[in-house]
Amino acid sequence: MDTTTFDPEDLTPADRYKLLSGLVVPRPIGWIGSVSTEGIFNLAPYSFFNVIAANPPTVLFSAGRRGGELKDTAANVLVTGEFTVNIVTEATAKAMNISSGDHAPEINEFELAGLTAVRGQRVGAPRVLESAASLECALSHWFDLGDPPTNRVFVGDVVFLHVRDEVLDGTRVNHQALRAVGRLAGSDYVTTADALFTMDRPD
Amino acid sequence: MDTTTFDPEDLTPADRYKLLSGLVVPRPIGWIGSVSTEGIFNLAPYSFFNVIAANPPTVLFSAGRRGGELKDTAANVLVTGEFTVNIVTEATAKAMNISSGDHAPEINEFELAGLTAVRGQRVGAPRVLESAASLECALSHWFDLGDPPTNRVFVGDVVFLHVRDEVLDGTRVNHQALRAVGRLAGSDYVTTADALFTMDRPD
Repeated sequence: MDTTTFDPEDLTPADRYKLLSGLVVPRPIGWIGSVSTEGIFNLAPYSFFNVIAANPPTVLFSAGRRGGELKDTAANVLVTGEFTVNIVTEATAKAMNISSGDHAPEINEFELAGLTAVRGQRVGAPRVLESAASLECALSHWFDLGDPPTNRVFVGDVVFLHVRDEVLDGTRVNHQALRAVGRLAGSDYVTTADALFTMDRPD
Repeated sequence: MDTTTFDPEDLTPADRYKLLSGLVVPRPIGWIGSVSTEGIFNLAPYSFFNVIAANPPTVLFSAGRRGGELKDTAANVLVTGEFTVNIVTEATAKAMNISSGDHAPEINEFELAGLTAVRGQRVGAPRVLESAASLECALSHWFDLGDPPTNRVFVGDVVFLHVRDEVLDGTRVNHQALRAVGRLAGSDYVTTADALFTMDRPD
């Protein structure tokens, strides 16, 4: 089997991005709601995102810089210490894609994508009412990657959850009902409900 | 639309796990190869895992504790400062599942799952020769979550990559050829090649 090896030092930044984001798949999408100090709601999808512990319930996302500056979401979360994570499903995939554009800070992506923003019950950051599930999160700490910094990684505690009854059996999530969407690379995404298979855990 | 709200403080640890791991999907699988100071090779899948930056190329995985103790992979990575991330595809999904069992430290999961271990070119940790792609990683830092600690999060720099030519067009990954597998929850996984759809990025 022919294999190509790469030393990341020899790759351009664009090629490093294509290889890493192309190989580490499928990634969950953290559709992050935040609010600026001026009260403008912001919404953007991040796929360098995941849950990193259930106890305590903890999520993380990494925000790249644009021309060296933090993007709107990152700037908001840094100042307010709060954000929401909204789960992207087939029903909201198009709206998520609209919100992924490169918009000015004064643009409210909820309005742009035809979504309803509702402030959290425990945080002031807005969640997507149309989302099948939303997690309200409080920033616990952050760290930078790169020198000079290229990405800021935000770690947050999940302090409250909203989940539509139709996707739940008790506390078990029904993936045929949730129909979550994941990220590949470029313009490519994946569905999950139609791609599910089961392997029994080994003894 | 009826919705249930949850305060994580009111949930049992098992229910927190079911909700978080059920909602944040699909997760990429970091199939982590490591070596103990005694030279025993270890291999185990982690789905609290993702790429968190492409420049510098950085990945992260979170390892839970078993009875308060670090698991084999975590203990190895902590001591050696090295690990590999092997991409799980349809061809290796069964072997990944076998390696996910709760095995004693002296068990070599490569042998158990019928896989070929090859030491990295830049790290001493073993990679899965049968994997379509492998990332060699050097631990840059780690942090604990929980009090007392429940999870240790390992952040690593990708220092070398091996990728089969059949899944590459230059540095672009062909997802129909890669056929990566992702994690849902319980015994459930997803394929990606048959679930792919495209949305053009907004202007």
